[in-house]
Amino acid sequence: MAEKWTYSFGAGAAEGSVKLRDLLGGKGANLHEMSTIGLPVPPGFTITTEVCAHFTDSKGDYPDDLNAQVNAAIAKLEATLGVPFGGDHAQGKILLLSVRSGARASMPGMMDTILNLGLNDETVQILAKQTGDERFAYDSYRRFIQMFGDVALGVDHYHFEDLLEDYKLDHGLNLDTDLTADDWRALLPQFIDTIESETGAPFPQDPFQQLWTAIGAVFGSWGNKRAQTYRKLHDIPEDWGTAVNVQAMVFGNMGEDSATGVCFTRNPSTGENHFYGEYLSNAQGEDVVAGIRTPQPLSVAEKENSGLHLPSLEDIMPGLYAQLDEVRNTLENHYKDMQDLEFTIQQGALWILQTRGGKRTTNAALKIAVDMVAEGLIDKAEAIRRIDPSQLDQLLHPTLDPDAPRDILATGLPASPGAASGKLVFSTEAAEEWVGRGEDVILTRVETSPEDIAGMYVAKGILTTRGGMTSHAAVVARGMGTPCVSGAGDITVDIKAKTLSALGVVLNEGDVVTLDGSTGQVMKGLVPTIEPQLSGDFGTLMTWVDEVRDLGVRANAETPEDAKVARGFGAEGIGLARTEHMFFDPQRIIHMREMILARDVQSRRIALDKLLPYQRQDFTELLRIMDGLPVTIRLLDPPLHEFLPRRKADIKNVAEVLGVTVEDVERRAKELHEFNPMLGHRGCRLAITYPEIYEMQTRALFEAAADVAESGGTVHPEVMIPLVADREEFKRLKALVVTVADEVLNARGVKVKYRVGTMIELPRAALTAGEIAKDAEFFSFGTNDLTQTTYGLSRDDAGRFLQIYREKGVLADDPFVTIDQDGVGELVKIGTERGRAQRADLQVGICGEHGGDPASVQFCHDIGLDYVSCSPYRVPIARLAAAQAALGVKAQDNA
Amino acid sequence: MAEKWTYSFGAGAAEGSVKLRDLLGGKGANLHEMSTIGLPVPPGFTITTEVCAHFTDSKGDYPDDLNAQVNAAIAKLEATLGVPFGGDHAQGKILLLSVRSGARASMPGMMDTILNLGLNDETVQILAKQTGDERFAYDSYRRFIQMFGDVALGVDHYHFEDLLEDYKLDHGLNLDTDLTADDWRALLPQFIDTIESETGAPFPQDPFQQLWTAIGAVFGSWGNKRAQTYRKLHDIPEDWGTAVNVQAMVFGNMGEDSATGVCFTRNPSTGENHFYGEYLSNAQGEDVVAGIRTPQPLSVAEKENSGLHLPSLEDIMPGLYAQLDEVRNTLENHYKDMQDLEFTIQQGALWILQTRGGKRTTNAALKIAVDMVAEGLIDKAEAIRRIDPSQLDQLLHPTLDPDAPRDILATGLPASPGAASGKLVFSTEAAEEWVGRGEDVILTRVETSPEDIAGMYVAKGILTTRGGMTSHAAVVARGMGTPCVSGAGDITVDIKAKTLSALGVVLNEGDVVTLDGSTGQVMKGLVPTIEPQLSGDFGTLMTWVDEVRDLGVRANAETPEDAKVARGFGAEGIGLARTEHMFFDPQRIIHMREMILARDVQSRRIALDKLLPYQRQDFTELLRIMDGLPVTIRLLDPPLHEFLPRRKADIKNVAEVLGVTVEDVERRAKELHEFNPMLGHRGCRLAITYPEIYEMQTRALFEAAADVAESGGTVHPEVMIPLVADREEFKRLKALVVTVADEVLNARGVKVKYRVGTMIELPRAALTAGEIAKDAEFFSFGTNDLTQTTYGLSRDDAGRFLQIYREKGVLADDPFVTIDQDGVGELVKIGTERGRAQRADLQVGICGEHGGDPASVQFCHDIGLDYVSCSPYRVPIARLAAAQAALGVKAQDNA
Repeated sequence: MAEKWTYSFGAGAAEGSVKLRDLLGGKGANLHEMSTIGLPVPPGFTITTEVCAHFTDSKGDYPDDLNAQVNAAIAKLEATLGVPFGGDHAQGKILLLSVRSGARASMPGMMDTILNLGLNDETVQILAKQTGDERFAYDSYRRFIQMFGDVALGVDHYHFEDLLEDYKLDHGLNLDTDLTADDWRALLPQFIDTIESETGAPFPQDPFQQLWTAIGAVFGSWGNKRAQTYRKLHDIPEDWGTAVNVQAMVFGNMGEDSATGVCFTRNPSTGENHFYGEYLSNAQGEDVVAGIRTPQPLSVAEKENSGLHLPSLEDIMPGLYAQLDEVRNTLENHYKDMQDLEFTIQQGALWILQTRGGKRTTNAALKIAVDMVAEGLIDKAEAIRRIDPSQLDQLLHPTLDPDAPRDILATGLPASPGAASGKLVFSTEAAEEWVGRGEDVILTRVETSPEDIAGMYVAKGILTTRGGMTSHAAVVARGMGTPCVSGAGDITVDIKAKTLSALGVVLNEGDVVTLDGSTGQVMKGLVPTIEPQLSGDFGTLMTWVDEVRDLGVRANAETPEDAKVARGFGAEGIGLARTEHMFFDPQRIIHMREMILARDVQSRRIALDKLLPYQRQDFTELLRIMDGLPVTIRLLDPPLHEFLPRRKADIKNVAEVLGVTVEDVERRAKELHEFNPMLGHRGCRLAITYPEIYEMQTRALFEAAADVAESGGTVHPEVMIPLVADREEFKRLKALVVTVADEVLNARGVKVKYRVGTMIELPRAALTAGEIAKDAEFFSFGTNDLTQTTYGLSRDDAGRFLQIYREKGVLADDPFVTIDQDGVGELVKIGTERGRAQRADLQVGICGEHGGDPASVQFCHDIGLDYVSCSPYRVPIARLAAAQAALGVKAQDNA
Repeated sequence: MAEKWTYSFGAGAAEGSVKLRDLLGGKGANLHEMSTIGLPVPPGFTITTEVCAHFTDSKGDYPDDLNAQVNAAIAKLEATLGVPFGGDHAQGKILLLSVRSGARASMPGMMDTILNLGLNDETVQILAKQTGDERFAYDSYRRFIQMFGDVALGVDHYHFEDLLEDYKLDHGLNLDTDLTADDWRALLPQFIDTIESETGAPFPQDPFQQLWTAIGAVFGSWGNKRAQTYRKLHDIPEDWGTAVNVQAMVFGNMGEDSATGVCFTRNPSTGENHFYGEYLSNAQGEDVVAGIRTPQPLSVAEKENSGLHLPSLEDIMPGLYAQLDEVRNTLENHYKDMQDLEFTIQQGALWILQTRGGKRTTNAALKIAVDMVAEGLIDKAEAIRRIDPSQLDQLLHPTLDPDAPRDILATGLPASPGAASGKLVFSTEAAEEWVGRGEDVILTRVETSPEDIAGMYVAKGILTTRGGMTSHAAVVARGMGTPCVSGAGDITVDIKAKTLSALGVVLNEGDVVTLDGSTGQVMKGLVPTIEPQLSGDFGTLMTWVDEVRDLGVRANAETPEDAKVARGFGAEGIGLARTEHMFFDPQRIIHMREMILARDVQSRRIALDKLLPYQRQDFTELLRIMDGLPVTIRLLDPPLHEFLPRRKADIKNVAEVLGVTVEDVERRAKELHEFNPMLGHRGCRLAITYPEIYEMQTRALFEAAADVAESGGTVHPEVMIPLVADREEFKRLKALVVTVADEVLNARGVKVKYRVGTMIELPRAALTAGEIAKDAEFFSFGTNDLTQTTYGLSRDDAGRFLQIYREKGVLADDPFVTIDQDGVGELVKIGTERGRAQRADLQVGICGEHGGDPASVQFCHDIGLDYVSCSPYRVPIARLAAAQAALGVKAQDNA
């Protein structure tokens, strides 16, 4: 059997359907579908994506029998409409065609549409006769020449516009609409000449030649540079190809009984269930987009709502509006989703030109999904599938009051979402000092480095003038859930002078600025924020989500504020409380420094004893807030030098407070200096050398646990030992933890069930997970550091060359954002398998930044982890992503 | 059947043999063996190691029937000798026993020997009667009391010595030998009282009680602290246990017809095949060791050789000497190895007390092994098995002339073997400057850091006053094959004043010192060195080694000198030529810096063009030296900032030479600064961002290859791309290399077979090896960096805490010395398997420091790698280790 290259549709029937989306493209498949369900679609046919593949592979050839099939499809179309393509002078009728591309996925960057195909110097006369409107005929012809020239032949638009401008100047005309049929008749030969002079070939008068040129242009545009780039960026395979839709023209500009419009079956901003759209009477689709005339509302209700006094379609053509409303119902009942459709009314007849799933805001998506469940259109699982988890992000952070005025200084990269206001400071030291006085600060740097960590911890927001979305500032800020704008290149910062200048404005230390980490805006002064307004629909959907998912979701949190937010967002415990964050508070860091400067165990213990009450207090609050849920406490992780002062003045101050010499402090800092701190003396290595640190932390934790338990709370502490490379390290430190914990609990006579486990963040730990699991009761994959070691990639340094990697296309995804499944993911799998082979009930989760990334959550679900842990504001995202994973939705389906 | 706990031997028969070493211990098994082959062994029995296990497990109990079996063994002994244990007054005869421990492996730290057991206040009389020598009897008794008290009862030696001293003072006596039988009779009750007062129990007069106490003491000593520590250090399992050997006493001090001695069946220093040993007449074994009397030579030949004029055993007792020489032949023919034996002549009768494999120098080991093959005693495989590869190290480096005087200033750690002399410099900059003037320098630092790399490259030797065997200096020096003494704490270095002081001597910059990296000695002035003197035996053995091994051995070398050494030592090519080493030469680094400071591609190319001739010259020499063998060229690897100057003066100089400002240089250095350079912008990442660097290197290589090929050489260049994490990186850079290589070769009309492969040094590369092998033609595991990333352990920083890890026993081996099989080795396995699954003929090797470590070589053999590559002086070690691996020798067998 010969292959079928063309599929016809129209007049209540179609050879294709929405199931043939791969073959017919999205637009084509929907045209067939609408025909089949009886909607008034202008008849036509689709040339399949397989022809595109043939065209691409053969560099411009078509299958042998395509010509015959196209001719047959045209003949069928002519028969359906009773009008010949190329027109019939005698009959005074003409069949014009539109030619549109239509790939499986929407593809900006490709050739889009050619209208009015079939017109030439002769047939324009037939059209004039048929419509009785010469001006309309010539206007249609000139639109065709321009579009065909530009889109199919590559003759730039401006050639035609220049000619038109000259003509209008010469003839004292103002608007395009001022041109008469005669004017166009006079001008069009110049258009046609231009095409010949630009392309070296005459403008094709033959309708079939026009058609094949247009078809070739569509298929050719699949391979153009812009389309290739778009596909690369959006992971669209080269071999998908595009289809071509050839369809009879209908005209919305055939007089006052004609119109054209676009509409949504529900409100795409709010999701409310009312018909929403706009139209223009006596116009073609392009006129609605052009914005010269103000589009009018569709319904009376909408008109009243908008306060505009333009007549609605419902007012002017109530019958046609009712028909359209019927179409709306048919489409929603058929597609079970909100649709975005285009229609044209030609001389009192309604035609539907396109339908597709409508784009919507996240709030609308939530409302529509929940409403449709109530309406019985879809089930809960489908509602869950409908929401893109990454879209949720914008709903979940405090946002700037949209009604408040904004004095925007510059726009950088939206590096870490959320809004924050505070006083400008230009150094970590200043940040600590101002915060110590109770001020909110925005830490501003050219770039941040690990030396700025202390300042970043205390700042409300972070602003840098250099560095991208994976710069140190961006990554650390996201990890801390702190709003951040990075790479705001239009701002100049003078660190020494402590000034920030932009747009001629100079701000000094202490001046207030506001950051919007979700848009990258930097504003002068305080812009009030509003808390996230979560609709009831959100809550409803999240209930369904929790019914479906089997992957747990915890939060990374160490402050009471974060813990509360996390619990409010449905976190099922804390998966990572970074205890070192608790030491950066100005009141505490001095004791930390005392500990680091201590010369022997006794002095270290004395300093640690001073830290103990703070730490116990922190733990007590966390355990209270997370009553009944597990709380994973990671013992001290960063290298000690991160806690030491760097500036002369601070060193002097520390020396004075601690009663040592400046030289002592400097000597110690020098001793602790490391060339590769990421691979240095940190994590459990600190506790192998100074066990008293973990002893203090364990004591503080279990005293807190006892306190909370005694006052009626239910506590499930989980002690996490970081940076384990070898079972022996873990074994010894677990013994230390168990000894101290049991001692405290026995002394208090309190029973507390607890676990001791480890963070798997080194390749060796993943590889030897079977050994480590002999002692460890849980694993939490620290995928941030695991990415650094597996890739040999320092997050602090990689920003500069990763940028080039992405520009050159060497790397598709940032491995610090989406888990690298082939490398890091492979280790997570190996570690999980080996760990569970040793200990069947081993609890396994991840607690890197990836825990809040939908694609990574999907991966964690697929390989059977118990939970992910992410920053508090990403908890709902992770919950939704986990539910979708359980429903078998692939993360890229949302892309 | 009841278990057998005791095994008797003597009188030409034995119940055990050398095959029961595990059960009878080394000493015991050899006693049984010697009995069986008819050598005169004093009869006795062995209590098995299983009894020790029972004793240890039950904390001091014996198997039920042990008592009966010991009694039976004693009875058998009494029957053999016709003398009762405990003595027979009537007969006037007594059987005395020795009790000795004897584990499977020699075990210092355990109880060793008790002699003369069975003597008491009564039986001493029988001994006096039997020997007719009362003084001998009492001297024997007092020796027993002292030994028994000290060794079995834990009464410190000094108690007895104090009593003896007092007695001698009181009685005006000088030497122990001045004491008569009466003196001893008067003194011994005090010895016996002391034992009672110290232990709280009377000295056991009952011989059986003495025996059981001694047996218990031997078994108990298996569990003492010293023994435990020794076992931990030498990987001896706890459950091996020790045996106890109970044996009839023979006396070498029963008059002038008695003697005792130790001998080796061949010369243990030179390996020459002559009888070698010393003896004392009328003495017990302990007298030979005590050194009060000068031991006499065994043979006439030896006497003449030594120039000493003491009579030899051959002179005095020619018949017994002939018997002993016969024993020597019997033992060598039986054991097929050089033996270390102990003998005693009691009143004209020869007794052999012990035999074991004799310790020997490496040169002796080589000669003995090769000679024994010639003699037909062993085969070549056995000869190969006999040499410990790690022992070879000392033979292979230039060593200090042993006859030259040494003015030793201090002794540090022998961090990197070999000897070197040169002028003292105290900074990298000075090192470069002096070397630029043609001087040899010794770079001296407190500790080194990556900033000292340039100086370390050019120095002849490296000396540090801080840091251990895995400090930066030690590791880098070993990697470069440069002699190094680290942690010479007795030396004080003042970097600012440029002085080194030790032992009151102050040396200044430019003063000459000599280092011995094999002993850790630091010497003032020049000590002449001698090249390694390799015997013909070495060459012979190495020929056999190459017949056996199937693992290839290449060398890491980039200088012509190293390449020549490597080829001389039998390297089968170069496995790693680090091209960056070639840029540190003072003439070249300026162009490197120009390249780094260049603002655009054009300027970078201009600078690279200046480096090209140097690089081509380097490659030409390497390819010539390695004619016919593969040469693996690793393209630029380290981060660019390693090449920039650091000191103000140097920065100024560079700025002047390059015609830029000091600020330019400083700005660029700041831009390039990295927080974790190990994980930073280096390796192939440099070439993704600056492809022109690898282009230049590839061009230089293939121009060199064409030159050599045109002049009749055979070249096999292998281009190695470092630090690949993802196939895409490799794919692009391979394309670059192939393009340039083919362009050069085509232009020259030369055909050269070459390979393009990668260094696998990141966990991700090992995990995704299947992907990378789609393009890569070879893998070389860079186990140094792979260890750093797999362990998350910076070699530059880990020295400080790894020391503590080893002290606390958390880590057994330094993973930078011996490959970590569970982690790094697992990745090497995974990478090899996945790579070969993709490409069956993938060539796989390693080129880390581990390539010269015998245990690591064994691992590489076991997992089927094609080759190892190591520093030139370790090539023979790797060859031998590879052969042993092929013969199934386990590396720890050599320990």
